[in-house]
Amino acid sequence: KIVKKYTKFDFPQDPYVQLEGAIAAVFRSWNGERAKIYREINNIPHNLGTAVNIVSMVFGNMGDTSGTGVAFTRNPATGEQELYGEFLMNAQGEDVVAGIRTPMPISELAKKMPEVYKEFVEIAGKLERHYKDIQDIEFTIERGKLYMLQTRAGQRTAVAAVRIACDLTEKGIITPDVAVQRIKPEQVEQLLFPAFTDVAKKQAVNEERLLTKAIAASPGAATGKIIFDAEKAYELSKAGEHVLLVRNETDPNDIKGILSAKGVLTARGGKTSHAAVVTRGSGIPAVVGASDLDIDYGKHVLTVGKQKINEGEVLSIDGGTGEVFFGDLEKVNPKLDDNPDLLKILSWADKYAKLSVWANADTPKDAHKARSLGASGIGLCRTEHMFFGDRIPVFQKLIMVAPTVRKFRHQLNPMRQELVEVTEKEQKKKLKQKIRDIEEELAPFDLVYKDALKELLAMQRQDFIDILKAMDNLPVVIRLLDPPLHEFLPNFTDLSVEIAVMKERGQNGKKLNEKLAFLNVVDSLREVDPMLGLRGARLGILFPEISEMQVQAIFEAACFLKKKGFNPKPKVMIPLIGHVNELKFLHKKLLKIAESVMKEHKTKIKYQFGTMIETPRAAVTAGEIAEVSEFFSFGSNDLTQMTFGYSRDDVGRSFLPVYVADGVLPHDPFQTLDTTGVGELIASAVTKGRKTTQKLEIGVCGEHGGDPTSIAFFHKAGLNYVSCSPFRVPIARLSAAHIMLADKQYSIK
Amino acid sequence: KIVKKYTKFDFPQDPYVQLEGAIAAVFRSWNGERAKIYREINNIPHNLGTAVNIVSMVFGNMGDTSGTGVAFTRNPATGEQELYGEFLMNAQGEDVVAGIRTPMPISELAKKMPEVYKEFVEIAGKLERHYKDIQDIEFTIERGKLYMLQTRAGQRTAVAAVRIACDLTEKGIITPDVAVQRIKPEQVEQLLFPAFTDVAKKQAVNEERLLTKAIAASPGAATGKIIFDAEKAYELSKAGEHVLLVRNETDPNDIKGILSAKGVLTARGGKTSHAAVVTRGSGIPAVVGASDLDIDYGKHVLTVGKQKINEGEVLSIDGGTGEVFFGDLEKVNPKLDDNPDLLKILSWADKYAKLSVWANADTPKDAHKARSLGASGIGLCRTEHMFFGDRIPVFQKLIMVAPTVRKFRHQLNPMRQELVEVTEKEQKKKLKQKIRDIEEELAPFDLVYKDALKELLAMQRQDFIDILKAMDNLPVVIRLLDPPLHEFLPNFTDLSVEIAVMKERGQNGKKLNEKLAFLNVVDSLREVDPMLGLRGARLGILFPEISEMQVQAIFEAACFLKKKGFNPKPKVMIPLIGHVNELKFLHKKLLKIAESVMKEHKTKIKYQFGTMIETPRAAVTAGEIAEVSEFFSFGSNDLTQMTFGYSRDDVGRSFLPVYVADGVLPHDPFQTLDTTGVGELIASAVTKGRKTTQKLEIGVCGEHGGDPTSIAFFHKAGLNYVSCSPFRVPIARLSAAHIMLADKQYSIK
Repeated sequence: KIVKKYTKFDFPQDPYVQLEGAIAAVFRSWNGERAKIYREINNIPHNLGTAVNIVSMVFGNMGDTSGTGVAFTRNPATGEQELYGEFLMNAQGEDVVAGIRTPMPISELAKKMPEVYKEFVEIAGKLERHYKDIQDIEFTIERGKLYMLQTRAGQRTAVAAVRIACDLTEKGIITPDVAVQRIKPEQVEQLLFPAFTDVAKKQAVNEERLLTKAIAASPGAATGKIIFDAEKAYELSKAGEHVLLVRNETDPNDIKGILSAKGVLTARGGKTSHAAVVTRGSGIPAVVGASDLDIDYGKHVLTVGKQKINEGEVLSIDGGTGEVFFGDLEKVNPKLDDNPDLLKILSWADKYAKLSVWANADTPKDAHKARSLGASGIGLCRTEHMFFGDRIPVFQKLIMVAPTVRKFRHQLNPMRQELVEVTEKEQKKKLKQKIRDIEEELAPFDLVYKDALKELLAMQRQDFIDILKAMDNLPVVIRLLDPPLHEFLPNFTDLSVEIAVMKERGQNGKKLNEKLAFLNVVDSLREVDPMLGLRGARLGILFPEISEMQVQAIFEAACFLKKKGFNPKPKVMIPLIGHVNELKFLHKKLLKIAESVMKEHKTKIKYQFGTMIETPRAAVTAGEIAEVSEFFSFGSNDLTQMTFGYSRDDVGRSFLPVYVADGVLPHDPFQTLDTTGVGELIASAVTKGRKTTQKLEIGVCGEHGGDPTSIAFFHKAGLNYVSCSPFRVPIARLSAAHIMLADKQYSIK
Repeated sequence: KIVKKYTKFDFPQDPYVQLEGAIAAVFRSWNGERAKIYREINNIPHNLGTAVNIVSMVFGNMGDTSGTGVAFTRNPATGEQELYGEFLMNAQGEDVVAGIRTPMPISELAKKMPEVYKEFVEIAGKLERHYKDIQDIEFTIERGKLYMLQTRAGQRTAVAAVRIACDLTEKGIITPDVAVQRIKPEQVEQLLFPAFTDVAKKQAVNEERLLTKAIAASPGAATGKIIFDAEKAYELSKAGEHVLLVRNETDPNDIKGILSAKGVLTARGGKTSHAAVVTRGSGIPAVVGASDLDIDYGKHVLTVGKQKINEGEVLSIDGGTGEVFFGDLEKVNPKLDDNPDLLKILSWADKYAKLSVWANADTPKDAHKARSLGASGIGLCRTEHMFFGDRIPVFQKLIMVAPTVRKFRHQLNPMRQELVEVTEKEQKKKLKQKIRDIEEELAPFDLVYKDALKELLAMQRQDFIDILKAMDNLPVVIRLLDPPLHEFLPNFTDLSVEIAVMKERGQNGKKLNEKLAFLNVVDSLREVDPMLGLRGARLGILFPEISEMQVQAIFEAACFLKKKGFNPKPKVMIPLIGHVNELKFLHKKLLKIAESVMKEHKTKIKYQFGTMIETPRAAVTAGEIAEVSEFFSFGSNDLTQMTFGYSRDDVGRSFLPVYVADGVLPHDPFQTLDTTGVGELIASAVTKGRKTTQKLEIGVCGEHGGDPTSIAFFHKAGLNYVSCSPFRVPIARLSAAHIMLADKQYSIK
């Protein structure tokens, strides 16, 4: 009847026609919507195709000496070596799955049919040894005779994958290189995600705080205030709040909110829904399809069963189990040291890898973390974070006077030069007076400027002592101040509104004048496109005193440590070079500072000066730049921004999600490197740089440094190291080994 | 005494030591400050060096049969053929220059010493014929005997240069190719600058409105309100005011104000002062060193003699003569047709040139101008200007609803697809209801959207009719809407302040709500870096209806004209492509529109779809892009911005002037193409594009298209045409010929 209804044809009676229909159905399933999405998520090419196997049927439902079951050769959750599965007597495969009858654990079969069980154990062992991996086996017993229906490599958890790979290696069944290849980067990621402690979870359940359990879409534990609007979630996150974005479902317009949230919870959608795909891609914990949630966007209330929760209250989600809790739960960050299997796998990986893995770390804490996760150095220590927090008033003092100081100096320089050339007495006198006048005007500003620099020097010195100490004996690439100065000042619009309101209220005092002076500086530093404005080396050239102070702090810190018996290895990195002359200009000035500090301290430090390759022009002219730069580090984020002409801050919430969803771009170029465009610039820059300096050390410190696909490209391009967030170091170490092993086409032993 | 004072050595008595000292002084003069600046302005390499010639002295001061003088073989101001110069009897060269005695016109020599005069005329003629150019000759008569001291090619005005080159050619002394080579691009520029009419000038002098005459620093006539502050000048210019920037002197901080002003007037500085150099480079009229100006910045008053002029009053300056007038004067734009000599030179130039010269023109008026100046097509017709002015309310209506329309459509599309797949009745019903709900919500927005599009279509159609008609038979490259949408909306800060003030005043009505709704849309479209945001093709992909409307207007206009007997040649240009898929997506949609319009009108138009190469990624992947694009046009402005990572709007007033002044960059890369970086991307894109499509038509439409040095590069890179502002078309035509002639190394006949 069903066939008739949908196809308008009678059900065919000829078994060959039936068979042909069944075969066609299998082939058709390849193009089903779900199959397509599955392939996209798992990077399986669409043109691979499927196959159909036709075998004669055996029957598990021929009475009490028949039965059917499924079993793993090992525990797929933990990796322990034990037969793991279930079976039903007098039943077909469907019955095991359908859940109408409760199957028995496989161990029961030993009692029911000891001969058959013994044979099954033997065959299972043989299959595992033959395929050298955990097997997922389906079997049927027809009137006492055992038939194997199917065997395949078993799906396993990350924990199990690592355990099994180690065990098989130790038993000599596979070699370490195969073990390394067996582990996927995502699995390492999973093992290192923060998790709720077991104790906290039990307690929460006892306190009846477990609200619901839904689809575990993206692993990890997250806690935050629930917010129902993506824009609002974004704003609050930016303001430093921990936010859980809660929506019926998400769409590309919500991207900004999703990416800024600690976690995502949706009422609708499955493992392949928008929320699930985006969060998994970005490492944000998510639970989706929690159908017993009822969100009232208008009233800002979430209802689960009888419980009403207001927007802004705190929930916790476990993206690995799908659990949703009320309130906060204690979390742990798994340590690499707690997982000896993973440690083993990674140490094997390091033997095969050629690319070295460094970390991006700005604080001593991050540096320690990076080191414990196996980083061989710091590839990017950003110094701008060191100017925020309690230091921002000092830095603001400097910024407030810097343009004035620069302006006066700019006036004085040619005058002083002119003074040398002028011979006429009266003219000379006049010029001298003019210079004195300007110097007098400059003096108070200059005093503030120099005082602020002195204060910052002391702070920076301690920063660098702490970081270089944490990374003793390993290289630390320290990037000089990079962002535009207005990032350290209040927002122009906010300040304008504040002033307008003050004026409206008739407030005319000193405070208004202060605000107005502030606005004036903020306005003068405001830019239409700050990404393409006064930052990086440009800042260093206009205000050399800032870079000089930083370099002084670095070398004072290094000398201090050296004298204490440490071995600091600083590498000074000058950001955003577009023309080799910029580098020449700064290198000359900064080298002088470095040498004079070392001379003063009578200490020799091993150091380098180098640059980031992050503008397309730097990539194109890398040959020239290598004449001055002692190392290269690709800033793949900025290079991607400028090569595409995409502002990462903007396009992520305008067209980029649409481009990726509609296939205009094959993937988000900020997550996985665009090898055709940006990659070509990188590859040619490597060639040009090494043509100038054969042994030039080249790394990458953009976020692509932690992405397995991108790492493969960097390896091929001939880089020496990738630098990524500490958390991704183990993933990168594994990926670096994978490339070498894939290259060598190791055969399975 | 002087030598003793400055060198501490006695004046040497040995004539050989004196001679050596004199020789050394000449060589030293090569590195004098003024010589350096002169070379920089005239693009003379610093390492060229100088030479010293030693000859025996002749004396013009040996009584009444001796004398000395200088003369040109032609009038260097007009180019007319007449001996032009002056002399003094019983005098040395110094006396002629010093101005103590008044020299006599050269014609007087015929009376005083007819024999000598006759000989001089003969020699002068011989020299001119030998050197095939106007000669600037110095001579001395010693006791009745004529000595020629020096001859060199004479400096001449632009008018004279053109006149002389034509005359020498017509007399067969030089060939047309030499004549073309003799004219500098700057001279053509000078001949086409706007000028005050003679009548207006005479009248102004009679009315005693001529305030002063100072150094003519940068040619052209300008009138505007005088403003003493660069920032203020910039703001007012932006607001549409005509401004003259008046300063004691200018410095790099004033750049923004200088470049936005109609003209610049300074009280100090000479021909090589900052103001002079910058304005000449940018084609802005300027008078400098007007030392009788007294500017009181505090009181905002300019005093000239006894006359006090308030800031904001109107002055006029003639940068070709150095005159400063009070009030406005009538101006003329010189027409090419009025200068038959220049017409001749350019027509000869066109014969040698290989690069074709097109113009950037957005209006019919500009198109006519371009055509009259010899443009062979329009290489860039920007359509964004067509949405400003009285059309802005219509376009704002569209922008206000566009994001909402897009959001709803984005929700509907997958639902409609789902509806096809869903088979379960209840589910189908629910989904249908949901779709109806959303459609209902969308309807009012959609109506506004479509109405606005319809209104714009009618306007655009007329725009294109006018332009295609003006350029009948010639290609017109029409660029689809490029800038980000927020450029058409009020400024976010201004709106925020306005709203804050309204709230503060307790205004709570409908008007506030309207403002708030406006703010909401402005905020949602606001970008951190608009240059790298939602614009160009990205806009077209997110809101395809806008591009579709434009293409419909273009083809309706073309069909209309074709039926009237014209021959329109539209080329549709899609801006800001980064990935070939963007082009594929839009090309498919737009081609359909074009074909359907032509079908409806039963008319065939010759047309092309192409793209701009203006992101580094487009340049790198030009091979792929050429598979879809029927032509390339390099957007060298944006390509420079992204390759360097420079925002033109910002860096011009922060570090770029400093970079150029301090030699960090050899020149402003927005004026003259950076051949090492940006140029390499262009050259490789040409190679890649032509590898895909051998005969691919390639041009450039950035401002470099009118810069002679850059034009030489474009020629070498193999471009088919350059497109520049109409005003620069003759300059580009001449430059295009120069390159070919230099390449062929034509020898002078």
